[in-house]
Order: sequence, then C-alpha cells, then structure tokens
Amino acid sequence: MHLVVVGGSDAGISAALRARELDDRVEITVMVADDYPNFSICGIPYYVAGEVADWRDLAHRTRSDIEGLGIGIRTGTSAEEIDVAGHRVTGVDRDGGTVELGYDRLVIATGACPVRPGIDGLAHLGPAEGVHLLHTMTDAHRVMDAVTGRDPGSAVIVGAGYIGLEMAEALTARGIAVTQMEALPQVLPTLDPELAGRVAEKLEERGVKVRTSTVVTGIRSSGGRLTVEAAGAENGAGHQGASEESADLVLVVTGVRPESGVAGRAGIGVTRNGAIRVDRRMGTGAPDVFAAGDCAVTHHVLVGETYLPLGTTAHKQGRIAGENAVGGDRRFAGSLGTQVVKVFDLVAGRTGLRDQESVAAGFHPRTVGSAGDDHKAYYPGAERVEVRMTGEVTSGRLLGTQMVGRISTGVHKRIDTAAAAIFAGLTVDQVSDLDLSYTPPLGSPWDVLQTAAQGWTSAVAGVGGAGGTR
Amino acid sequence: MHLVVVGGSDAGISAALRARELDDRVEITVMVADDYPNFSICGIPYYVAGEVADWRDLAHRTRSDIEGLGIGIRTGTSAEEIDVAGHRVTGVDRDGGTVELGYDRLVIATGACPVRPGIDGLAHLGPAEGVHLLHTMTDAHRVMDAVTGRDPGSAVIVGAGYIGLEMAEALTARGIAVTQMEALPQVLPTLDPELAGRVAEKLEERGVKVRTSTVVTGIRSSGGRLTVEAAGAENGAGHQGASEESADLVLVVTGVRPESGVAGRAGIGVTRNGAIRVDRRMGTGAPDVFAAGDCAVTHHVLVGETYLPLGTTAHKQGRIAGENAVGGDRRFAGSLGTQVVKVFDLVAGRTGLRDQESVAAGFHPRTVGSAGDDHKAYYPGAERVEVRMTGEVTSGRLLGTQMVGRISTGVHKRIDTAAAAIFAGLTVDQVSDLDLSYTPPLGSPWDVLQTAAQGWTSAVAGVGGAGGTR
Repeated sequence: MHLVVVGGSDAGISAALRARELDDRVEITVMVADDYPNFSICGIPYYVAGEVADWRDLAHRTRSDIEGLGIGIRTGTSAEEIDVAGHRVTGVDRDGGTVELGYDRLVIATGACPVRPGIDGLAHLGPAEGVHLLHTMTDAHRVMDAVTGRDPGSAVIVGAGYIGLEMAEALTARGIAVTQMEALPQVLPTLDPELAGRVAEKLEERGVKVRTSTVVTGIRSSGGRLTVEAAGAENGAGHQGASEESADLVLVVTGVRPESGVAGRAGIGVTRNGAIRVDRRMGTGAPDVFAAGDCAVTHHVLVGETYLPLGTTAHKQGRIAGENAVGGDRRFAGSLGTQVVKVFDLVAGRTGLRDQESVAAGFHPRTVGSAGDDHKAYYPGAERVEVRMTGEVTSGRLLGTQMVGRISTGVHKRIDTAAAAIFAGLTVDQVSDLDLSYTPPLGSPWDVLQTAAQGWTSAVAGVGGAGGTR
Repeated sequence: MHLVVVGGSDAGISAALRARELDDRVEITVMVADDYPNFSICGIPYYVAGEVADWRDLAHRTRSDIEGLGIGIRTGTSAEEIDVAGHRVTGVDRDGGTVELGYDRLVIATGACPVRPGIDGLAHLGPAEGVHLLHTMTDAHRVMDAVTGRDPGSAVIVGAGYIGLEMAEALTARGIAVTQMEALPQVLPTLDPELAGRVAEKLEERGVKVRTSTVVTGIRSSGGRLTVEAAGAENGAGHQGASEESADLVLVVTGVRPESGVAGRAGIGVTRNGAIRVDRRMGTGAPDVFAAGDCAVTHHVLVGETYLPLGTTAHKQGRIAGENAVGGDRRFAGSLGTQVVKVFDLVAGRTGLRDQESVAAGFHPRTVGSAGDDHKAYYPGAERVEVRMTGEVTSGRLLGTQMVGRISTGVHKRIDTAAAAIFAGLTVDQVSDLDLSYTPPLGSPWDVLQTAAQGWTSAVAGVGGAGGTR
C-alpha cells in the first residue's frame, strides 16, 4: 500500500503523519514543490520582523523528524499530472527530470497561491525591482534579502487583510515607513467596520499610513525607486482622486486562490473559483483520491460548502484525509472561519458569521455591539474589550462573535469560547448560562462574552437582559 | 408588590438588579447584615496585597448606584426571622431595634460563613491576638489593620484552598514570611496532585513554606506572639510528628458553610449540610420564597444537586431568583464548578469533574495528562501549559479539564472553552474538531486543549489520536 501526498505544507504533512500514526506499514511519499516541507508560513511576518531569528525555526518539524517516521519526502518536485485511472502521479524535478509515482491512495494538498491583482506594471516587476508577493518561504527569503540588504526606508503594502497587517507591523519593527493601501473602505475587511476601526487607529498610532478606499492601479520602477499609482475606490462615477506614492519596497498581499491546476487537468471536480470539490471525508469523487487544505473547498458549520483557506482547517482536513486514506471513516466537522490577528499590541478575532454573511446564508440575524473590561476594574491593568455578537432573531442561535482588545485581554482565547458555543449550536442566551471562570485579576463574574449575550437578548427582546447583574 | 432580598452580596444584589431591570414598578428592599452591600469579597486578597489601594474600589457598584435604581438598602440589619405564612421578615438593626418588613416575594441570599475548624484555643482567640478568619469586608479591615499597624514579620495560613493561596501571595507581597499549612497531602485540593504540585513549587519558589499533610491542632497566644501547634495528618496510627511554629499573624481559611439559620428556623428545607434546598427556578418550596448563592444548594450540570459556593454561581442564581420573583420563569442551567486561581505568575483552572468525582457521579471516566506550548515555540515567550482531561470511556463525553500555566498562557480563558464544551455535552473527540483561533504569537494550529483531546482519545482507544498532526 503506497500513499502519495502532493504538497508538503500543513494539510499534506498532517495527512502523512496521521496515516503513519494509524498504520505503521503503509509506504508514504510526500512530493513537495519547493525545499520547505512543513514550514509554518503563518510565521513569516515574525521572521521578517526579526522576532524569529532563524528561518529554520519556522518549521513545525524538521525534515529529519518526518523522515524518521518513515515518511519519504521528495522536495523540489512539482506534480504535473495525475493519471486517475492508472493511479500514477507525474512530477518534474528541479533539473527537468520526470518523476513518476504509482499510488494506492493519493492526497492532493497543493495549497493556495497568491492572487496577482490587475495592477499595471506588476507583471513585469519582481523582487529585483523591490516588488514582492508573499506566500512561500522562497518569497520570505526574497523579502528578507530586500529588507536586510537594500535598507529600504519606505514600503507600500497593497492589501490590509491578515498578512498585510502583520507585515505592516513587521516592516515597522524594521524601521521602515509603511503605507498600507486597501481598496475596501476599511482595513481587515473580515471584521465589522466598528471593530476594524480600532485596528486602523492602532496602525496610525504606530506610524503606519493607512489609506483605505484606495485602489492601486499601477507600479512603476525608475532609478531603483518604485512609484505606486493609486485611485480612490470606484464610487459609481469611476475612480476618483488619483495619487502617487513612492517607496523602496512594495508588497502585494491581496489574498490567495486555490492551487488546483494539477487536479483540474486530471478531471477532478473543481468549483468555479478553482477549489477542489471534496465531501466531508475529504474524498474528491475520483477513486482513491483525497484533497485537503487551501486547494480544496471548506465545509462551514453554518454555511455549508465555501472556500476559506486557513492553517487550522488545513491541519484538520489533512488529518482526516490521512486517516481516511488508510481506511478510516472520519468526517470533517466543519470550519467556523475562526481567525485571530495580532496587530502591534492589539488583537482582533472573529468566529462564525457576521450580519451580512448570516443573511446571505439564509439566517435572520441581528448584530449587537457592546464592551466591557477583561477583568475587574479594581485590579490593575483592566482593559476594554469590544464585542459584536450576531445571533438569529427567530431561533436565538448564536451565529457569530467578533472581538477586539489588547493582547492582555485574552481576546484570542475568549473568541474560542464563542467558537465552541457556535459549534455546539448554543443559543445566545445559553452563552449567558455558561459557567466560565472568574478571579478578579483575570476575569469578571460575568465574562464580557456573557454581558454581550445579555445585551443581545435585551436588544432583541426589547426588555432587560442588558447585563443588569454585571 | 414588594420584593425583599435578605443579603447584599453577589446573589442578593443580582436578584434586586434583575427584578428592577424587568419591572420598574416593583418596590425592592435589600436587607444587609453589614455595611458593605455589593462588595467583591473575591477582591480582598488584592486589597491586602496593596494592589487595590482603596477598599471602596472593591464595590461592584456603589450604594448610590444601586439606590439610584430605586432599590432600597438597609445596612447593619440582620434577618432573624421569616414568617412564611405571614410574608414577613423580622430583622435586628445595630442598635438592637427590630425591623419588620412585609413582602410579596422574598429572596434569601444570606451567603456563607467561614468554617471554624476544631483547633484548640481558636474559640478564645481573635483579631486582638492576631488570629483571623477571612470572609467579609469587616474581616478584611481587621486583617489590613494587623498587616499595616502591627508590622507582622511572619504569618501562618491554615488552609491551602483558593483564598489561602491568594492570601499567601498577598502577605508575601507585604514582606511577611508565610507558612502555609494544609491537612491534605497537597495544596489546592480541588486540583489533581500532578497539577497542584506546580502550584506548590511556585509557592516555595516565592518563599512560602508549604507544609501539607499537616493538621493544625492548637493555637496559643503569649506575649504578643502566636504559636501554632501542628501534627502530621492521621495515617491510621494517629497523628505523627507534632511540631510548633511561631508567628505574628494567623489566618484560618479552611472553607465556608451555608449561612442558612434564618431559613431553617422558618421551616424552609435545608440539606444535612445546611444549604437551602432550591429547585432550578431557585424556589425554596415555601410560597413566594426564593434562595440563591452561597446559602443554597447548587445544581451541577453533571452531578445534579450539590453545594459549590462560587461568586459566578451566586451572580447567576441571584439573577434567576430576581427574574422569577417578578413573574419570570427562568431555570438555572447549572454549574460546572469552573474555577481559576492566580498564584503569583501561575494560573490554575478547572471545570467539570475530575476522575474520582466522575466515578462518584456514576460515570466511567479516564483522565489523561498532557502538555503543550501556549503558542508556536518559534515566537518568543512560548510557555508550557499542563492539561489533565477527563472523559467518559463509554460515551466519549468530555467530563472535565484541569490546566496549569503561567498567566501569559491564557489558562483562564482556555478553561472556558472546555467549560463551554462540557456544558454543551460535546465529546472529547469533538474538542479536537473545534475551530479554534490561531496566530503564531498567541496559539498553535492545534490548541493545547485539542492535542490533549487527541491524547485522551489515543490513550483510551489504544491507537493513534495522540497529536500526530500537531
């Protein structure tokens, strides 16, 4: 029995490890396009910032850790073709040589690749000119070479999603003056503007120039210097207010799309957006072929099939694909799109659905904002946590929670309590019933999540649930 | 309609506030035995430590905040008699005067009082000699007078539960040499010894002398100095190893018992241990009489009726009693005994049941210990979190979770995720399925709670679930 895994990032390695854990006789080969199996690409901003001194530390496990478990790794080998009927994968190694691997079971975990937006000049510019996409360890090395070797004084970051914000912090830590440009009217578009505004304030406080509703239209390179051309976001009358910003470095981080070419060419089903279709067992429909991670669709607990590339999901889906590939029968329980980001000393998190996402999914939501201290105000260091809670008016079900607070407030773990509640199908009212922990230096008798729940109930019922017994 | 509340701590004030919130016409009177309505007695250790400068700050709300809502407060008035048939409460004020209040609905929230263990001499010693119990604000003032006025160099704390540990930290912060004596073989007896051992290590590291399996048998006062007599815990052959320890200050903090005399005298049902019997609506069975908080029994989600005095529960039960007293119909969802304590820079938490508690409740548990980093090791500041997870072998249901880690690890909020999972009836396996948040500075793709769940499943099944894809 030979299990072949195509892709050596979170999903692929998770699949290989789980298969090995459950079956010590299966032969396992992981085909990895680059030289960095099992690297934590989520850690790249912290390497660029200098907080992680050695890029090798970003490996979840070393290559020899994995090989020591009897898992074969072929780096520098891109999968080019899958012969589904013949159960063979053909790859090309760095020297152009052909690698053919027969398989009994196949896990496709080819991940995602960065979106390259339609910016004039971008196609002809690259690291040599100081223009970078950022997704792989190879990209990270190039950015790091630029940061340490070229001594850039200024940078434009195109995009203000999770990675864009983390890179704004990283480059600021390097003493680089950062301008962040985002086409949408707010940073962190996955959060409601009320909370995303706190993140924008934090960026500005730390010297990042934030330009929202700003569409980058072109990048020019001249005399070692880059010029970023931008326009106001379209307002029905076309773009307004063209402007230019010069910079030594430009990072384009505007999201990713599934890397599913090899699957599509093999006749394996993909969505219109290119994500490999999988069932809850991570089966693709093609015999003995599984897919997992950023290359595949995501089952969302509240929405059903969607595309939501996240490291946590990749780990989970990979683990299931690996288990089922060696004869298991485990189903992916589903994502809630739980995400958290640290921006300087601020943390923003979300889980489940926001208002408009809930409407799109067929719910009848109401979203209520509230705020409270992370712990009793009399104990030093109490900090405000802002919460937006979304529930379904008809059923009372908790649909989503968003939070912003400083690191010390534990927003990152408080959002997990909400994630557990949504996962379990609890109502907003039941959140108020939860027996959560309390000690004055670290909490309140009613957690801020519970006063948010009471506030929601009160707002929806039009009668007191609003934290009267806080 | 007149609602009378007997007791002005967490449960009583919560009841009054909730009643007011739902009904702006009801007349509400709160009878308070001391002068400190709505004080956070959980905050006393931080006042003694000096971290809270002014004791007035320990009030959840000021008296005028509460009175401003149209809630009458009679301080210094002890409830002495309840005439259930006549719907009257008789109290005695500080001057010995009788206060009679007729009620339409009554909420008894008389709280708990400290256990006074059978220690020779204790009955005749008090604050004048430097011997203190610690439960009320009055007690807090006396301890504070002793700490600031007498300049004690040494203290013996009898008891190593939550308050005992917090006071060990507080007195250490005051430069007092603390010896902590505990009759049981470990500190923090509500935690498994494997984790409580970490707390004992922390105490010793900070200079607290920890003496477990040590029964205090007597206290003598002579020449302004106290002598604490102790013996080894009984080992079948009687007490062993008598010893003496001299100290300037002795704190006796060995737990509390329900303060239910007035209820018992009125014929309201109490348990053998003195807790007022209530149903899930907080009704006592006596017409129009509710009870809530530390004076009443606690419905536990997994155990049913028990006694578990906690501030969080008092807030919840009080809120429900207040709601139902004005015509509502809400049920107490139940406690999980979720608790957390900060001991210097360490935090220990628990929720649900431990192994032996699960057996006693009729479950077939297995408890598995594990450990992991709070966030990715490559990002600075990663710290180990130790977890013990208890699940039912037959059903797979999560029954309990215990954790110890440094403050920065967010143990206090991680335990809440487990509490939500237990509350919702999730299995251990489903904990591994939860979509929890991740960013390298604050978490891991698999949270330590999830690797603990995988470890449990692996240990119980005897096959790989043990975090192979961490």
